[in-house]
Amino acid sequence: MVNKDEIVNFLDEYLDINSFPDKSRNGLQVEGKEEVEKIAFAIDACMDTFIKARAFDADMLIVHHGLIWGGIEYVRGLVQKRLKFLLENELNLYAAHLPLDLHPEVGNNVQLLKLLGLEPKEPFGSYNGLSIGYTSEFDEPKPLPLVAQILVEKLKTDYVKAYEFGVEEIKRVAVVSGRGGFTIPEAIEKGVDLFITGEFLHDDYHTAKEGRLSVIAAGHYASETLGVKALMPVLREKFRVKTVFIDNPTGL
Amino acid sequence: MVNKDEIVNFLDEYLDINSFPDKSRNGLQVEGKEEVEKIAFAIDACMDTFIKARAFDADMLIVHHGLIWGGIEYVRGLVQKRLKFLLENELNLYAAHLPLDLHPEVGNNVQLLKLLGLEPKEPFGSYNGLSIGYTSEFDEPKPLPLVAQILVEKLKTDYVKAYEFGVEEIKRVAVVSGRGGFTIPEAIEKGVDLFITGEFLHDDYHTAKEGRLSVIAAGHYASETLGVKALMPVLREKFRVKTVFIDNPTGL
Amino acid sequence: MVNKDEIVNFLDEYLDINSFPDKSRNGLQVEGKEEVEKIAFAIDACMDTFIKARAFDADMLIVHHGLIWGGIEYVRGLVQKRLKFLLENELNLYAAHLPLDLHPEVGNNVQLLKLLGLEPKEPFGSYNGLSIGYTSEFDEPKPLPLVAQILVEKLKTDYVKAYEFGVEEIKRVAVVSGRGGFTIPEAIEKGVDLFITGEFLHDDYHTAKEGRLSVIAAGHYASETLGVKALMPVLREKFRVKTVFIDNPTGL
Amino acid sequence: MVNKDEIVNFLDEYLDINSFPDKSRNGLQVEGKEEVEKIAFAIDACMDTFIKARAFDADMLIVHHGLIWGGIEYVRGLVQKRLKFLLENELNLYAAHLPLDLHPEVGNNVQLLKLLGLEPKEPFGSYNGLSIGYTSEFDEPKPLPLVAQILVEKLKTDYVKAYEFGVEEIKRVAVVSGRGGFTIPEAIEKGVDLFITGEFLHDDYHTAKEGRLSVIAAGHYASETLGVKALMPVLREKFRVKTVFIDNPTGL
Amino acid sequence: MVNKDEIVNFLDEYLDINSFPDKSRNGLQVEGKEEVEKIAFAIDACMDTFIKARAFDADMLIVHHGLIWGGIEYVRGLVQKRLKFLLENELNLYAAHLPLDLHPEVGNNVQLLKLLGLEPKEPFGSYNGLSIGYTSEFDEPKPLPLVAQILVEKLKTDYVKAYEFGVEEIKRVAVVSGRGGFTIPEAIEKGVDLFITGEFLHDDYHTAKEGRLSVIAAGHYASETLGVKALMPVLREKFRVKTVFIDNPTGL
Amino acid sequence: MVNKDEIVNFLDEYLDINSFPDKSRNGLQVEGKEEVEKIAFAIDACMDTFIKARAFDADMLIVHHGLIWGGIEYVRGLVQKRLKFLLENELNLYAAHLPLDLHPEVGNNVQLLKLLGLEPKEPFGSYNGLSIGYTSEFDEPKPLPLVAQILVEKLKTDYVKAYEFGVEEIKRVAVVSGRGGFTIPEAIEKGVDLFITGEFLHDDYHTAKEGRLSVIAAGHYASETLGVKALMPVLREKFRVKTVFIDNPTGL
Repeated sequence: MVNKDEIVNFLDEYLDINSFPDKSRNGLQVEGKEEVEKIAFAIDACMDTFIKARAFDADMLIVHHGLIWGGIEYVRGLVQKRLKFLLENELNLYAAHLPLDLHPEVGNNVQLLKLLGLEPKEPFGSYNGLSIGYTSEFDEPKPLPLVAQILVEKLKTDYVKAYEFGVEEIKRVAVVSGRGGFTIPEAIEKGVDLFITGEFLHDDYHTAKEGRLSVIAAGHYASETLGVKALMPVLREKFRVKTVFIDNPTGL
Repeated sequence: MVNKDEIVNFLDEYLDINSFPDKSRNGLQVEGKEEVEKIAFAIDACMDTFIKARAFDADMLIVHHGLIWGGIEYVRGLVQKRLKFLLENELNLYAAHLPLDLHPEVGNNVQLLKLLGLEPKEPFGSYNGLSIGYTSEFDEPKPLPLVAQILVEKLKTDYVKAYEFGVEEIKRVAVVSGRGGFTIPEAIEKGVDLFITGEFLHDDYHTAKEGRLSVIAAGHYASETLGVKALMPVLREKFRVKTVFIDNPTGL
Repeated sequence: MVNKDEIVNFLDEYLDINSFPDKSRNGLQVEGKEEVEKIAFAIDACMDTFIKARAFDADMLIVHHGLIWGGIEYVRGLVQKRLKFLLENELNLYAAHLPLDLHPEVGNNVQLLKLLGLEPKEPFGSYNGLSIGYTSEFDEPKPLPLVAQILVEKLKTDYVKAYEFGVEEIKRVAVVSGRGGFTIPEAIEKGVDLFITGEFLHDDYHTAKEGRLSVIAAGHYASETLGVKALMPVLREKFRVKTVFIDNPTGL
Repeated sequence: MVNKDEIVNFLDEYLDINSFPDKSRNGLQVEGKEEVEKIAFAIDACMDTFIKARAFDADMLIVHHGLIWGGIEYVRGLVQKRLKFLLENELNLYAAHLPLDLHPEVGNNVQLLKLLGLEPKEPFGSYNGLSIGYTSEFDEPKPLPLVAQILVEKLKTDYVKAYEFGVEEIKRVAVVSGRGGFTIPEAIEKGVDLFITGEFLHDDYHTAKEGRLSVIAAGHYASETLGVKALMPVLREKFRVKTVFIDNPTGL
Repeated sequence: MVNKDEIVNFLDEYLDINSFPDKSRNGLQVEGKEEVEKIAFAIDACMDTFIKARAFDADMLIVHHGLIWGGIEYVRGLVQKRLKFLLENELNLYAAHLPLDLHPEVGNNVQLLKLLGLEPKEPFGSYNGLSIGYTSEFDEPKPLPLVAQILVEKLKTDYVKAYEFGVEEIKRVAVVSGRGGFTIPEAIEKGVDLFITGEFLHDDYHTAKEGRLSVIAAGHYASETLGVKALMPVLREKFRVKTVFIDNPTGL
Repeated sequence: MVNKDEIVNFLDEYLDINSFPDKSRNGLQVEGKEEVEKIAFAIDACMDTFIKARAFDADMLIVHHGLIWGGIEYVRGLVQKRLKFLLENELNLYAAHLPLDLHPEVGNNVQLLKLLGLEPKEPFGSYNGLSIGYTSEFDEPKPLPLVAQILVEKLKTDYVKAYEFGVEEIKRVAVVSGRGGFTIPEAIEKGVDLFITGEFLHDDYHTAKEGRLSVIAAGHYASETLGVKALMPVLREKFRVKTVFIDNPTGL
């Protein structure tokens, strides 16, 4: 049993929660039980996730997409239902959005690179003056289908889609998990061969194609499971708490 | 028993809740029970008030100062405690700030004038391009102490303080309940004899004095009890609900 | 042969091009030949489209997604290539984004409804204080798979995906073409049964699901082909010009 | 006799006048005589104060609340009267608002702590990203009435009001002079036992009470006399000028 | 003798002083004597003008360029000297900037057209969403040198410079007094033959030349003497006051 | 022959192009030929300049006033004509506005001082928090007409106008090329004897006069020819390219 404040203080510091401009209100969004024995991890704060967290007897839930973006103006409808459930069950809700994308150890983007056997090389992906992704480089160039195949296997998802717009052999890679298409012009300018992200939108299609930049869309959900999963052993070792991952895929 | 949405829709329209720029999120701030039999009325959304509302078996609480100003960024500490209480007890919370100051029938300012036997004459008190108070005029000029005495008796408060900075006999009056001192320059410019408000702040003292404008501070709390009280019979008649006023004075 | 200004003036007025706040610079974005004999229509301003327009001997190209959003800061890279091609070939480029989404006759959303045999009922889909979509209602409720099947056939696309989150029989429908997910909370609040849009994003999945709102994603590209296509006969009849539709699907 | 620029330059630097975001235009607000022999000190820039300063033959007046906040848009009414008096009498007016609240030696907040025999411990009271107050700690815990009594005696004011909302014995104290109630949530979060300020407003009552934070309101005027008074010997010693304090209490 | 408020109220209404977004604080900028017998008129609020106004025993000075733009942050240096002079001499200062450019009777632009025997035809010259100038048309086209010659004679200035960039015979004219070059693109778009303004800047030279728009620069000072001069008889007739024009040319 | 990117990268760094807040989009505004053999230099981006640059067989044009300020919203009219010409002739356009005013070696202001035999002493001329000019000092005071005469001779322009408002013998000088009048209050406050700029506007006349600050207006065009001219030998030496200066004076 650990006091919730100890975990929150550790995470706030470990993830450097107050250093990044983010619409997500990062940190402890909803306060619950004082003592924490079991922590659930998930991607999205929603009723399905909350119900499973309670079924697992979790005292705290750590998510990538929290409940509060900007500020809650009215506690009505879905917001009321979700808050009521959390407060009645005294389930602590901790959210980490950008801090869990760009973290140099457990961040979604570093973890995505690791799936491909790569190390982060340079910060990439400017968002509000912040680099939220990374570039990297294969020692041996690889064909696009092979890179895609590795992701299918490691992410255990059949969502992965590959768009071959550039060179046949991929050497330089840039990664921005989730919906990272807004950084495609930067990838083109920096001469990257392949851009890996979660969702690939219509708007970005022709830019990538004309810029001869190949793209892999690995799924918004799938590409963002890595960060919270990497956080699990960190908290287990630090606090001797029990952990559980709640899989709640959207197929998107 | 009335469905809460009927009451909310009526109040939204009756108080014209969406027409005024206000930091308060006016309207149903926290959703509770579907069916409403008893409504409590109070000035401030706080634990003391909530606990009394529950003790009275209220299904809805209508206040002048709600819980949400701007937006809730974190459900922690006091905010968590208050929201948890409301949601666990399924107590609907409805807030009306500026709409209940300026309303032509039940508004705090019109009601303050009525205590003095006056009718609103002209809109007064510009706030974000909105007039939130009124001016009025005595048929017979009255000395300041007499006006103060009437307020002491009618408001049943000994907070009332009178500052005699101008003429001996008061004819023209301007009223802005709560903390209305920011409209003192307007009162001076318009040649008013007496400005009535709730709290009178240090900052406004010399402006009023040099502008030869007498001031009565009737108490922030006391001056804002009138609006919600005037709303009580309106809802009783309209919906046949029971009502109760929760007195929770701050002495300020 | 028609002078380009006549066509531009007609379109500016017909589409009410200057009345909507839009990041797209709507209207004649790039000035080309004075005289126009043939007009090409497409969804996206990109090299593939430009090259085909020239191959068809078009003098003007009308698109939904133009070249200029906000303003061009540097004429370099892709922007230079695209502008150079247009200017060297004196191809007029006319763009209409929001004005072609919300137009009551040729707009993407009205046209989407027509595919389903429906008429627009009420404005829907608030965007910068503007309604860009519509609601409608089936005379006879229809099961979701049937609605999806009609869209597959009429749009001639196998992209269409249906998410059954609510009632079995669909009666009330709301439509926002392209990436319309930001209006899902409005659809839930208004009690709509089915929301039809182009792209459906991860972020909106749980909101729709918990709000019991079924969703059809018909493809960003496919859902936005309808507006420009509906504009073709209008210009043919008005100006006796030749027209051609350039199909350049992204599969997104 | 000292040149006014020498005094102004010294004060600008000593009070670090240009480093803080403040609505007050800090520094020499109104230029008067070149040579300065006697300096008057007061809290508020108003006619009463100006007339007394002239009666004392002062060449410069240093105040906490100046004439110019933002900017003067029209020299009419009270503003005209005040400016006319200053300019005709060539009375230099120097204002220091936030710089005189937070100064580590002569600031209102440090001086308030000194009355209680305390030293500033940590910066406190975030205002536009600036800490304007301090926390401190009694070696021996003291009951609230005793702390209030010391302030009554040292400040020579009977305004002082104490609100006992928390522990009986006060150890940790936070101080923000004037109207400092906006920092009450910060005081609660930091576990302070007593918050000392000038004016205590209705709005902050329930927050303090539920947060179990005791409050002393020492008077806006009284709590802000300390800074300018502490500045007097500094200028006497530095420039051999004569000084006089103008007491012009508002009772608020 | 007229009370100053009567004149101010008349001017505020006649010039519609509060209807235009202007950096100039239009209206009575500095309050002086209560009673007004003589009014001086000038272009610029400066010491030269003030001294002459006093020499003429004026009680009020009406100018096109006042003392206050935005707001006065410090009464020091030139600002102090000017304000001190006005306040010590109790000289009322009234300013009208944009309201005196665009006024349909006495405005600088209408008056400039009248010098050429022209009537205003359409509003022209968009500035913050406001039209501050006018277009007009000669019945008989005139060569540029002839138009320039008329202005030299009527304005009694040898500043006038003509730039022949377009057609030889001028028919359509647009006028924006002072520094109006920012409206040159609008003049080109509207197919005007000649643009008349006060100062013509380097920045606008090539735009006018490539747009084949001839330009006459009549002098900033000279082009803005017309409005205040036209106001003189209006006030003489209305209030039976004496008037005097103070000529203080800058040669610019 | 040099690759254009090498020159652009060198200039971006040498002029520190991305460090200054500027409405001008500094850097390579329009991309042209890959290989550069001859570079033209001019003040203004306009058709006259472009046509001459092509006549000189230039591959790149470097200007002080570029084509893009903020962003291009529509490629129509003059903008279309200019862009079309540049793109069809593959003429690279490089613009440097503030970076070429304030550069410590080739900047317009340092170069203006050098004409007078002076070295920059202190940064001067605050613009968006940036110092864009310099002050300097003559070893031997000089009469104003002599300083003006030197500029006439060295700049080979008869535009130069001198306004003697202050001391007879000039010692301290401040320089801001182009339209620098907005820094005149700063020059007065800093006790400068002479302010040298390009254009001197009506608005600044009385401020300079009352502040006893003499002014020399050397012509906007003339005062800004120095920077690009000083850049010519730098690029010749660095890249062995040919250079040509295109003189296109506006007389303003």
